[in-house]
Amino acid sequence: MSLDHPAIAIIGSGAVGGYYGSRLAQAGHDLHFLLRSDFDAVRANGWIIHSCDGDFSLTPDQFHAYNEPSRMPPADLVLVTLKATSNDQLGLLISPLLKDDTIILTLQNGLGNEEQLARLFGSHRIIGGLAFVCINRGQPGHIHHTDHGLIAIGEYQGPPTPRLRRLADIFNSSRIRCRILENLRYGRWEKLLWNIPFNGLGAAMDLTTDRLLASSAGIDLVRDIMKEVLAVAHADGVDLDPKLIDQKIDHTRTMQAYRTSMQIDRQTGRPMELDAIFGQPLRLAAAHNVPIPIVQLLARQLRTLNNE
Amino acid sequence: MSLDHPAIAIIGSGAVGGYYGSRLAQAGHDLHFLLRSDFDAVRANGWIIHSCDGDFSLTPDQFHAYNEPSRMPPADLVLVTLKATSNDQLGLLISPLLKDDTIILTLQNGLGNEEQLARLFGSHRIIGGLAFVCINRGQPGHIHHTDHGLIAIGEYQGPPTPRLRRLADIFNSSRIRCRILENLRYGRWEKLLWNIPFNGLGAAMDLTTDRLLASSAGIDLVRDIMKEVLAVAHADGVDLDPKLIDQKIDHTRTMQAYRTSMQIDRQTGRPMELDAIFGQPLRLAAAHNVPIPIVQLLARQLRTLNNE
Repeated sequence: MSLDHPAIAIIGSGAVGGYYGSRLAQAGHDLHFLLRSDFDAVRANGWIIHSCDGDFSLTPDQFHAYNEPSRMPPADLVLVTLKATSNDQLGLLISPLLKDDTIILTLQNGLGNEEQLARLFGSHRIIGGLAFVCINRGQPGHIHHTDHGLIAIGEYQGPPTPRLRRLADIFNSSRIRCRILENLRYGRWEKLLWNIPFNGLGAAMDLTTDRLLASSAGIDLVRDIMKEVLAVAHADGVDLDPKLIDQKIDHTRTMQAYRTSMQIDRQTGRPMELDAIFGQPLRLAAAHNVPIPIVQLLARQLRTLNNE
Repeated sequence: MSLDHPAIAIIGSGAVGGYYGSRLAQAGHDLHFLLRSDFDAVRANGWIIHSCDGDFSLTPDQFHAYNEPSRMPPADLVLVTLKATSNDQLGLLISPLLKDDTIILTLQNGLGNEEQLARLFGSHRIIGGLAFVCINRGQPGHIHHTDHGLIAIGEYQGPPTPRLRRLADIFNSSRIRCRILENLRYGRWEKLLWNIPFNGLGAAMDLTTDRLLASSAGIDLVRDIMKEVLAVAHADGVDLDPKLIDQKIDHTRTMQAYRTSMQIDRQTGRPMELDAIFGQPLRLAAAHNVPIPIVQLLARQLRTLNNE
């Protein structure tokens, strides 16, 4: 494993990939971005990051930009920040980058991404991560990082390993706060506890988080959805601490008028990450006979928005 | 009863009251409009109606406009077209207009309006009506009538009466298609069968009717909501024909991208007629132990929008 001077590939250089990749490049790492829509702008002008932790920019000579994975060199670390709606392209995009010891870290939303990567490339390569960050794309090559930024990473199989700790060091020494998850699945469910109500209601109703929490009707609704998520997680073998419900709600108040990624997708007419965030929980609930009527209805509303 | 040359008072001269009142005045009837926001414009310039059945306008000498009920003469017929969210003002607004034989016809949405009027002014006066019309206010004094227009009227107590038929004649001879309801309650529930899914989802999700019917997910959702309404109606003693579900959906397709009144209220920040359309059905469902989980959740989303 070569995590001493790793070649790092960013697959999916949207807001999340662009931001974390730029932080790593800023710290001197060897970054290789695979871009689609922003390729021309980023290759010409570099990255411009408007960040609540301090603005910065990268000139084009501080990293490598590609619009074709076949042109990219083998990577020691592949960071998957592709939208989960494009997961059918994972094989095509990542295969050209693999060496025997390449590690694949997915920072994607929802449940099922590690499973899919493991099926394609082998479980031993896979590390899962959660990004807790408020971030949006601006004009091409511009990223607006408005709040938070922590990532939490965990081995797909088993407890933390030396390579996981080394990865955390790389992030932490690049001004990306990173913590180690003892149990990745717990972390995934903890994030879903937030994503399902706030992305779900935010997109279905086209409301920012502050509007959802502005009334007791809204707070009760968020709370009841979280209780349903807790119940499915339990059936999936993950016992989330019920105190998390109040903690997440209190924390969300500090985010003010936040538009979730799904709400932004709705407003801009882009596909929503419905299957990643809702699909697997709904399938698990059905398999374990856990009633989650509110989440089910939310998913039906979101499928309506997605014209499914 | 003086329905030969009736003095007709319109209480609540928004889109519905302005449109039907103007049609009656155009036919030569003696119309007295109680206005609030449009008072100055309508008194100065009259009514301007942009109608799919032919544009027309009324000059100020063709009707009477008031901004105070105490200035209005006694009426033979009071047409209540107030938004149901202002029902707490019914006593104040209507009392000054009453003679012994004044008839009160409410064209308001939802369940509970006749009951409220009957408690205030006596059941014998009350006639209920449903307006099937696509209509919006434009700038002050302007009304946009885009589709349909039928009204259906029924006695609050018992079967059709001569006065009801006379009323229908008045409308029909004023280019307002009017049919007689044998059973007002059936008619009310039939209208709720449309209003609950389309106003509910339209406002909660901020979607026009065509978007709700553009996907099988949306159609299934509308259909399942209608099934819940059918079940509550049944518990309330009204057996709606299940064929109405497909009929209403097919009919709604002909309305194209229709914004329901509740969706417009949401977009313009005005209060939604939540209690009239959802309140009574929810209370009846609770009283009769009829499970209506989707309608319940919709109501919770709408209360969130209403900041309740």
